Amino acid sequence: MFECKLNDAQLLRKVVECIRELIKEGRFEVSQNGLSLQGIDSSFVALIQLTLRASGFDSFHTDKPMLLGLQLEQFCKVLRCASLNDSITLQAQDPGDKLNITLQSKDDDRISNFVVRLIDIDAETFTIPSKTYNCVVKMPSSEFQRIVRELSGLSDTVGIEISQDGITFSSDSHQSSGKIQLKPSTLEDGQKVQVKAEKPITQFFALRYLLSVAKGCTISDSVVLMIANDIPLVCEYKVENLGNLRFYIAPKIEED
Amino acid sequence: MFECKLNDAQLLRKVVECIRELIKEGRFEVSQNGLSLQGIDSSFVALIQLTLRASGFDSFHTDKPMLLGLQLEQFCKVLRCASLNDSITLQAQDPGDKLNITLQSKDDDRISNFVVRLIDIDAETFTIPSKTYNCVVKMPSSEFQRIVRELSGLSDTVGIEISQDGITFSSDSHQSSGKIQLKPSTLEDGQKVQVKAEKPITQFFALRYLLSVAKGCTISDSVVLMIANDIPLVCEYKVENLGNLRFYIAPKIEED
Amino acid sequence: MFECKLNDAQLLRKVVECIRELIKEGRFEVSQNGLSLQGIDSSFVALIQLTLRASGFDSFHTDKPMLLGLQLEQFCKVLRCASLNDSITLQAQDPGDKLNITLQSKDDDRISNFVVRLIDIDAETFTIPSKTYNCVVKMPSSEFQRIVRELSGLSDTVGIEISQDGITFSSDSHQSSGKIQLKPSTLEDGQKVQVKAEKPITQFFALRYLLSVAKGCTISDSVVLMIANDIPLVCEYKVENLGNLRFYIAPKIEED
Repeated sequence: MFECKLNDAQLLRKVVECIRELIKEGRFEVSQNGLSLQGIDSSFVALIQLTLRASGFDSFHTDKPMLLGLQLEQFCKVLRCASLNDSITLQAQDPGDKLNITLQSKDDDRISNFVVRLIDIDAETFTIPSKTYNCVVKMPSSEFQRIVRELSGLSDTVGIEISQDGITFSSDSHQSSGKIQLKPSTLEDGQKVQVKAEKPITQFFALRYLLSVAKGCTISDSVVLMIANDIPLVCEYKVENLGNLRFYIAPKIEED
Repeated sequence: MFECKLNDAQLLRKVVECIRELIKEGRFEVSQNGLSLQGIDSSFVALIQLTLRASGFDSFHTDKPMLLGLQLEQFCKVLRCASLNDSITLQAQDPGDKLNITLQSKDDDRISNFVVRLIDIDAETFTIPSKTYNCVVKMPSSEFQRIVRELSGLSDTVGIEISQDGITFSSDSHQSSGKIQLKPSTLEDGQKVQVKAEKPITQFFALRYLLSVAKGCTISDSVVLMIANDIPLVCEYKVENLGNLRFYIAPKIEED
Repeated sequence: MFECKLNDAQLLRKVVECIRELIKEGRFEVSQNGLSLQGIDSSFVALIQLTLRASGFDSFHTDKPMLLGLQLEQFCKVLRCASLNDSITLQAQDPGDKLNITLQSKDDDRISNFVVRLIDIDAETFTIPSKTYNCVVKMPSSEFQRIVRELSGLSDTVGIEISQDGITFSSDSHQSSGKIQLKPSTLEDGQKVQVKAEKPITQFFALRYLLSVAKGCTISDSVVLMIANDIPLVCEYKVENLGNLRFYIAPKIEED
């Protein structure tokens, strides 16, 4: 049997809502280490890697490794029933074909029980090679979302350039072009822009993936963007003390 | 001639907006006792009974009983012109074919006059038998709306069970099922759940009617739900010191 | 070369958004005096006159008069990238086919550069005769918008009457009619209604133009409405210390 409890049901809701932007079905892996998920969008451009450590949950127990396949929209509908301060308990038998979800208010006067049917999801797990990214930017996630939305009016491709001077988002179309540059800040506070850039790199991405990924701003105040030549962009959101949600976005062939 | 005045025009707007969720034309009855309306939705599942006592108005006068038939969307358009703190005056001649509506700001620097054409509405008035409901719950109306909306994602039928343990809303579909239970609260304050249940009862209702009825949460902070075997559910909203708005919703044949 | 800078980029955004309600392409005239625009909507009912004085800008320089033709939706997309407290710099060469737009945050850590292609716009400039309006009302622009929106549910023509008693907006349809009257206020504060009316005048206007014009409430807290017989209604919004935005709306032939 698998059972885990998290005191902040809303946090799990935000994570699943964000994943659902890119994939419809989620294959959650349960192990002694915690809960994880890997998924790839239907056009193979975006890979999602969610890692939630067992130690970050308020309780976490499983007899043996399990796979929980969930239709994510269905799962979200249940998670949206969570009030502020509700705790969430997930429970599944092995073998079994359903996930029990319990939402409980802090003072215990509202208890919701849901049962969601599990589905089989065929998928292989990729081993993501550990790469060194020589250009890394940490920036406010709300600013990331705002810039991506602003540029969405101008073109469907966004260039991201990271250099010592900061991070620059650019777009180009027949009628207009734009560049939005954020300079690195000397301040250490999380709301500012921190830049590490060994040498300047520019890569291009399909805007619609960035729009989906940018919805992670509900999960964390800041996002880390990592770029290197010939490998995918990484967008990482910290999921409080549980782990993180990473998006790997394949670059477009460079435009000039 | 009929003329009545209410210092809170917004209250009347909220009541009419809520009625309009289920019926398109409203037949208001004017008598010495006040203003009332009875209506039944086109599929004969929901019956609406509005009672506004003459004594609750700031002034109320009628020479003789009258019937005022109004196209409710038209009436709402006018009522939506009411600002916060506007008073409203309704006026009609008998015989006559129009309703005069005056909205007036508190300091009298904004006066709006509207004329809405009256229509003939054929309808018989039902005498609603006074029944004893052995299961009654008073709960926050916003919570009622929230639960109904949450379950709307899961199924189109909602089970309502009232017992000593509280009130439970449930839904069931092929893919998932859910139960949301509110426990009775020992607190007396109106935001908590009060339960009277002689013996547990469960009945099933079409969700879309509950969704319409739940919009009454704009009228009052709390709603009273009454269930008994083989008779309609009653949802009652108090309309301040004027009276109340009651919805009678026929149950669906029980599912198992 | 032309270059001007304004410390409040949002103000320019609001002005252009409002103009775009009625015209798609804007022909901005640059001269030593400042920036101005005249445009007429496709059905020749509404004429727009924008006047922004050079002295109101934080810097303003041009070698010689120039015409800048802009596709306004494109221009708005760029202007919407302005954050609160961003400054804006416009720059164009003569001859040239593009406008450079720079948005800069207050503490200089976010700089956006945009280039928008200029277009040719054929248009003649009308000399608007200076008329004496014997009926003038200054009222809160939010109230103007609210009334126009309220009446939009009732009819597609609005009557505006100005008299010593105040300003009255009226509408009339088969099913209902309405009049909203604002009385003149003796208070001098800008949020109240000030009336000058030599003799009462009523004129009728197509509601959809008033709806567009009323969006100017984002630019200024108050609007000045001027009516006289046989000439267009003037709606004037002050653009802070830069100048003003005026709409001239041709009246409909009077209904009775």
